[in-house]
Amino acid sequence: MAISTKIQEFMEKSSWIRKMFEEGSRLKAIHGAENVSDFSLGNPNVPPPDLVNKTLQELVSDNTAGVHGYMPNSGYEETRKAVASYLGKIFGVAVSADHVVMTCGAAGGLNIILKALLDPGDEVICPAPYFVEYGFYCDNHGGKLVTVPTKEDFNLDLSGLAEAIGPKTKAVLVNSPNNPTGQVYPEEDLMALGSLLDEKTREIGRRIYLISDEPYRDIVYDNIEVPSLFKAYAHSIVTSSYSKNLSIPGERIGYVIVHPDAEQVGLLLGALNLANRILGFVNAPALMQRLVARIQGVCVDKSIYEEKRNLLCEGLKYAGYEFSVPKGAFYVFPKSPIPDDVEFVRILQEELILAVPGAGFGGPGYFRLAYCVDDQTIKRSFDGFKRALDRVTK
Amino acid sequence: MAISTKIQEFMEKSSWIRKMFEEGSRLKAIHGAENVSDFSLGNPNVPPPDLVNKTLQELVSDNTAGVHGYMPNSGYEETRKAVASYLGKIFGVAVSADHVVMTCGAAGGLNIILKALLDPGDEVICPAPYFVEYGFYCDNHGGKLVTVPTKEDFNLDLSGLAEAIGPKTKAVLVNSPNNPTGQVYPEEDLMALGSLLDEKTREIGRRIYLISDEPYRDIVYDNIEVPSLFKAYAHSIVTSSYSKNLSIPGERIGYVIVHPDAEQVGLLLGALNLANRILGFVNAPALMQRLVARIQGVCVDKSIYEEKRNLLCEGLKYAGYEFSVPKGAFYVFPKSPIPDDVEFVRILQEELILAVPGAGFGGPGYFRLAYCVDDQTIKRSFDGFKRALDRVTK
Repeated sequence: MAISTKIQEFMEKSSWIRKMFEEGSRLKAIHGAENVSDFSLGNPNVPPPDLVNKTLQELVSDNTAGVHGYMPNSGYEETRKAVASYLGKIFGVAVSADHVVMTCGAAGGLNIILKALLDPGDEVICPAPYFVEYGFYCDNHGGKLVTVPTKEDFNLDLSGLAEAIGPKTKAVLVNSPNNPTGQVYPEEDLMALGSLLDEKTREIGRRIYLISDEPYRDIVYDNIEVPSLFKAYAHSIVTSSYSKNLSIPGERIGYVIVHPDAEQVGLLLGALNLANRILGFVNAPALMQRLVARIQGVCVDKSIYEEKRNLLCEGLKYAGYEFSVPKGAFYVFPKSPIPDDVEFVRILQEELILAVPGAGFGGPGYFRLAYCVDDQTIKRSFDGFKRALDRVTK
Repeated sequence: MAISTKIQEFMEKSSWIRKMFEEGSRLKAIHGAENVSDFSLGNPNVPPPDLVNKTLQELVSDNTAGVHGYMPNSGYEETRKAVASYLGKIFGVAVSADHVVMTCGAAGGLNIILKALLDPGDEVICPAPYFVEYGFYCDNHGGKLVTVPTKEDFNLDLSGLAEAIGPKTKAVLVNSPNNPTGQVYPEEDLMALGSLLDEKTREIGRRIYLISDEPYRDIVYDNIEVPSLFKAYAHSIVTSSYSKNLSIPGERIGYVIVHPDAEQVGLLLGALNLANRILGFVNAPALMQRLVARIQGVCVDKSIYEEKRNLLCEGLKYAGYEFSVPKGAFYVFPKSPIPDDVEFVRILQEELILAVPGAGFGGPGYFRLAYCVDDQTIKRSFDGFKRALDRVTK
């Protein structure tokens, strides 16, 4: 075998997803893209806030020597200060620039965290359904993702988590607001999780870290707030990106922030800095670091997503689907009316609706709809949703 | 241990380099940065070509929907076309956009190549001295870097390479123009290397790929040309970045290009695409992809580096050092006048000259000077170089 055996296996295993996307492209080519309702991709469609464009224009007219040069692997001091100052207020825990590492998005952030933490065979516990990349990220660094089903409403099953944690557990990884379910974990559950991790740490004699992937923190509805993980557990590491709140996912800018009281915090920050370097990220893109330093707290008009959520939920209700109304992010995760979600997604394709089977997220029996699409795409899908459901139930 | 044991070992092993940099900072604080000659960092100091700033200004005034959004993991079709069209001419081998993957710099490029190729225990053969990150990059993906000393003039030792290649060899990794030596491998050596790899592939019964890290391709002197690896060996994978030719290393933009006749080329390109995604790069930064699509073939004024090279070489000659005149990149790698290069670098520090010991590059007995610094920094170092040499030889 010339290429890596494992990578070849990964490619084969994910070939059904590729085929599904290819079928989507085929349908668009036959019927016209404007007649297909594509809910398969989480690519934000709300434009970046005006301040993004305005600030970028200011920044690129500054040709001071070195503005595009290397900086420390953790990022510009100025950017890390701005992030620490803003997040300190949001999280209710004072943090300094030293606790921040700027990263190539949250995907880069998760990889440096796992590289910094994992020894071969270490386990990372994660509630399921979950973002499918987590399994790859753990495997990249010799670790193993262990999933624990959430409750019926996609909230944390604390007793399930307690059972799964063992001597190999290095970290628990949560993602709230959640992709693919849209669930936001309430404060009392996070507090209980914090207590559980303290208890289990004593039990196994090794610190269990809590990792939180929060790219959708600012995209929440009905005036709810995303609770602070830093208040729930001192040994927390949060990663996020500006992909969703600034609608710039292609620019790969995000951060990791470590709780100042986390065990071995100094070593951990040194390890994150080294991991950013040796994994080949080197540093987060310079110009985007300078951008986010200036516009902390800015967010796209999330009411647009909220209206899309409302519209799609009305349509699903009209068609007769069972689902939890998402509290955040831009996904809804309805129950498949037949147990085989892959088969049901095929039936939806026949109605010119593109979705992703829940099996792809460790949530078989469901399917994911990304509603970061234009309103017409949502509206024209309603009858198709109804027909698909009718076909399998009548 | 809370953090990864291996990462902690890496941090301990490289602590002497950190201490050396800290000593440099201490010297600057005491004596004033303007009195210290810092040759320790390869951070390009020639400003980006005007076209970089002009094009960026044009690009950020384009607010078309989605310009900062996700694109395929391999990058924009338009960018990959521009890279393929330009490099096809330079390399003398026709390539298409399909053979190009845009990456987060050459460091990102090397990591996706190694992820795509390596199975646990696979070896990557590399001439030494070498860029110290290569060892980490191989280790990231379960591989092992095996180094083979170059000849006295830092050219390839083909019989040494032939001896080192065995059944575990997955690839040979070359870097020309070379960091830290400034050597550029001549065409006949690359052709001989190509023949050797074909022969060894037959011998071990598994394809050996040739990986070339070429970020300094455009920074060469005395009108020499960097030969095309694609003409020397069909199973070649080239990675590079725009960090040095456009002086934008902080922006993390580069590419991987695969020879169209490489064994399993389709699988390999699929694997590179997947590796870009699952290692957390996701895609090369969008805005910088749009930049380089428009300015292929543009380069900083390399005559500035050539003059700096000439100036530093004159100074080293005046002071009495033994060294090969670099043909490219912006490093010179003189012989340490005492066998212990770490000790000699300490002596240079006492003369307010900052260098990096050759031991850091797998080249003990030498030291590296990066001459991407202003001319005054170079000029004021001459007497210090002389005094340091006198101290150890008189």
